[in-house]
Amino acid sequence: MSVVSEPAAPSMRTAVPGPATHKTKEELDAVIDARTVQMVIDYEKSIGNYITDVDGNTYLDVYAQIASIPVGYNNPTLVKAATSPEIVSALVNRPANGNFPSTRWLALLREGLMRAAPPGCTQVFPAQSGSEANDLAFKAAFMAYRQQQRAGSPWTECEQETAMKNQAPGSPDLAILSFRNSFHGRSFGMAPGYFPLLKYPLEAHVQENAQEEERCLQEVENIISSWHCPVAGIIVEPIQSEGGDNHASPAFFQKLQAITKAHGITLIVDEVQTGFGATGKFWAHEHWALPSPVDIVTFSKKAQTAGYFFSDENLRPDKAYRQFNTWMGDAARIIICNAVIDEILSKKLVEKTAQVGVVLYNRLAALADKYPNWIQNLRGKNKGTYIAFDTPDSSTLLKKMRELGINIGSCGVQTVRLRPMLIFEEDHVAPLLAAFETAFSQLT
Amino acid sequence: MSVVSEPAAPSMRTAVPGPATHKTKEELDAVIDARTVQMVIDYEKSIGNYITDVDGNTYLDVYAQIASIPVGYNNPTLVKAATSPEIVSALVNRPANGNFPSTRWLALLREGLMRAAPPGCTQVFPAQSGSEANDLAFKAAFMAYRQQQRAGSPWTECEQETAMKNQAPGSPDLAILSFRNSFHGRSFGMAPGYFPLLKYPLEAHVQENAQEEERCLQEVENIISSWHCPVAGIIVEPIQSEGGDNHASPAFFQKLQAITKAHGITLIVDEVQTGFGATGKFWAHEHWALPSPVDIVTFSKKAQTAGYFFSDENLRPDKAYRQFNTWMGDAARIIICNAVIDEILSKKLVEKTAQVGVVLYNRLAALADKYPNWIQNLRGKNKGTYIAFDTPDSSTLLKKMRELGINIGSCGVQTVRLRPMLIFEEDHVAPLLAAFETAFSQLT
Repeated sequence: MSVVSEPAAPSMRTAVPGPATHKTKEELDAVIDARTVQMVIDYEKSIGNYITDVDGNTYLDVYAQIASIPVGYNNPTLVKAATSPEIVSALVNRPANGNFPSTRWLALLREGLMRAAPPGCTQVFPAQSGSEANDLAFKAAFMAYRQQQRAGSPWTECEQETAMKNQAPGSPDLAILSFRNSFHGRSFGMAPGYFPLLKYPLEAHVQENAQEEERCLQEVENIISSWHCPVAGIIVEPIQSEGGDNHASPAFFQKLQAITKAHGITLIVDEVQTGFGATGKFWAHEHWALPSPVDIVTFSKKAQTAGYFFSDENLRPDKAYRQFNTWMGDAARIIICNAVIDEILSKKLVEKTAQVGVVLYNRLAALADKYPNWIQNLRGKNKGTYIAFDTPDSSTLLKKMRELGINIGSCGVQTVRLRPMLIFEEDHVAPLLAAFETAFSQLT
Repeated sequence: MSVVSEPAAPSMRTAVPGPATHKTKEELDAVIDARTVQMVIDYEKSIGNYITDVDGNTYLDVYAQIASIPVGYNNPTLVKAATSPEIVSALVNRPANGNFPSTRWLALLREGLMRAAPPGCTQVFPAQSGSEANDLAFKAAFMAYRQQQRAGSPWTECEQETAMKNQAPGSPDLAILSFRNSFHGRSFGMAPGYFPLLKYPLEAHVQENAQEEERCLQEVENIISSWHCPVAGIIVEPIQSEGGDNHASPAFFQKLQAITKAHGITLIVDEVQTGFGATGKFWAHEHWALPSPVDIVTFSKKAQTAGYFFSDENLRPDKAYRQFNTWMGDAARIIICNAVIDEILSKKLVEKTAQVGVVLYNRLAALADKYPNWIQNLRGKNKGTYIAFDTPDSSTLLKKMRELGINIGSCGVQTVRLRPMLIFEEDHVAPLLAAFETAFSQLT
């Protein structure tokens, strides 16, 4: 076991949620909307893959703060970073990084964060949440589109005036195409295309699935040519995560990129949930073997900071300050991110996640043979531990799993999604699978 | 002087920007758009009101990271918070606060952040940037508006289906009215009203300014009644800050609130730049003496964290998870914010800022008599140190001031804005005024 002093198994002391959780939740609700609170956590007692609540219950956590905790609770490398003089200064003297960066900013980015840059991406724009990262990426796509249309001619006076009033021609209507059931944060809406809905197992539905993907690509072309305003970009998740863990083939994404190239528009890959290793590649879009880099990749969650990488000087706005805000990210959070990257690289956690994912998938496939009603449409083969399945009543199953000491999440309408950390190992497969089997047998 | 070991005055060693700043800026530009970088800062050497750049130049900083640094560089109370075990855990074990808050979350909010709650506001929703806070506030206003329209009837199936597609009736077109020249972050646009453009000195233009405010209020009424979709809320800055430090009278804001009450829509006060004491009140809208609390107050910058306070259970969405995201703020940043609040309250910094503001304003008014071309439309009387004036060529003046060891900012088209920290004292007025006088005499 890689995490010293991690418990060997979950241990439960009270009903779930326990009395202390109930009490705190009630008190919280006086100052904040606490209806969504599921557990109240004693993070000091949590360690590695195990999370301990205020009632003293310890769970194996394969939800990990909605797919966010990358390398385990109280990870020593992160603790070291969180107690460094560098982070104290970044916390206390928070710079407006765009105007007054610290002497350390260059190294934090160039020798730090850029180690995570996707293939072909040479630039980064830091942000503070996945939603913010996507909003910034949309603006970058809009500006690049207009820049291309303008073909080097300067802004007209009329464009400058109308832009200040949020009117055309300075602020023309432009759209980003996103896919139905996609989730790109809680920002305002977009032109909706259809994401493929594949049938499982993939091997048994090759032709059908290929047709479904062709249908969706045709729909994308239709929207681009018929939308009421120009489509300046397409945003897509490698795996539609909140939408139910919907996958598509590398061929689909290759063709999608070809469409963006043909139309001269920006391809934004939203890797907020898929990025940083869980699919068995550092970035999920590396599974696609694209002929050229994607334009923009947004990140957050496991990165513990947020922002977007981009590949092309064309995605820098033509003028300074068009893409700007006060803080432009948080150096303190980038220091933590760099510690995460240190852990991932030095311990080969992406490669390990790819390996343990194979074991986990195979064990779940075997369990699906035994409980075909409970585990349907198992998916995520060779995608690390980014595995999901449909189940008739996910909320009852999740509740039962939590009683058995497993913290686990759902997505879509009836999907259980596994989002273990990158330190989830073969040793952790047994307690997880045992709990599933107990749950299925008790609920059947 | 309150900050021990603060320099007595600025000291300059190189031309501005110096060679080390140039070099770092160039290197930064390889990985990030660095065109906006003005200085590269050695934050370890910066202290109190003084900031030191990588070239060894030390400036009196009355810009404070775009109005953000509240209580001075390397403030000991903040350093203590930044080295506490609590913050280490919050940095390392970043919770999804909406689902899995820590055992400390309740105290961080109830005994911590809520000390800053504006009069009548009993609730908080944490966020990570001013833009995010405003976006969240807009959504809260939209949901409250629809809830009121729905008058307790449940969502129809059609509403639920269309909402998922971002179409009416589930997602009807709704607008937020904002004012021209306002700045509420870099999010997407809104219905623009006119903010009053007052003439200075106020005493000499009482009737004219009252008419101007009436005209703008009438325009607000017109927009609400004629906009192509319902206006669900109004967002307003107490002082339009990026737009040029435009003020309006308490009567204007009182009437604006009355309009929102009459129409049953939400009044959002954007205190991202004005909040946390710089105007001589903790919240700038406290200057208005409103008969009832405002609905939503957004904050960021000096708070060192972000979010919105709100006054009314009606602004909680009817269902859980409608207003939600992964992190829902950053407990580490809230710990820093609580240290800021500790400093402000224990050292009476709001009251002190009100006092020093009077001195600063009067000294500037005297200087304006001497240099009437350089200091025009001086404003911010009795608004703490939140003082601004127009000047014929603000960029030349700012450059000269920086050469003289003063870091200062501009806004609008031709406005110099003072944004000193809350620890700016009478001792600091002299070097600031001396630099202004030198600059004016050298530039004239």
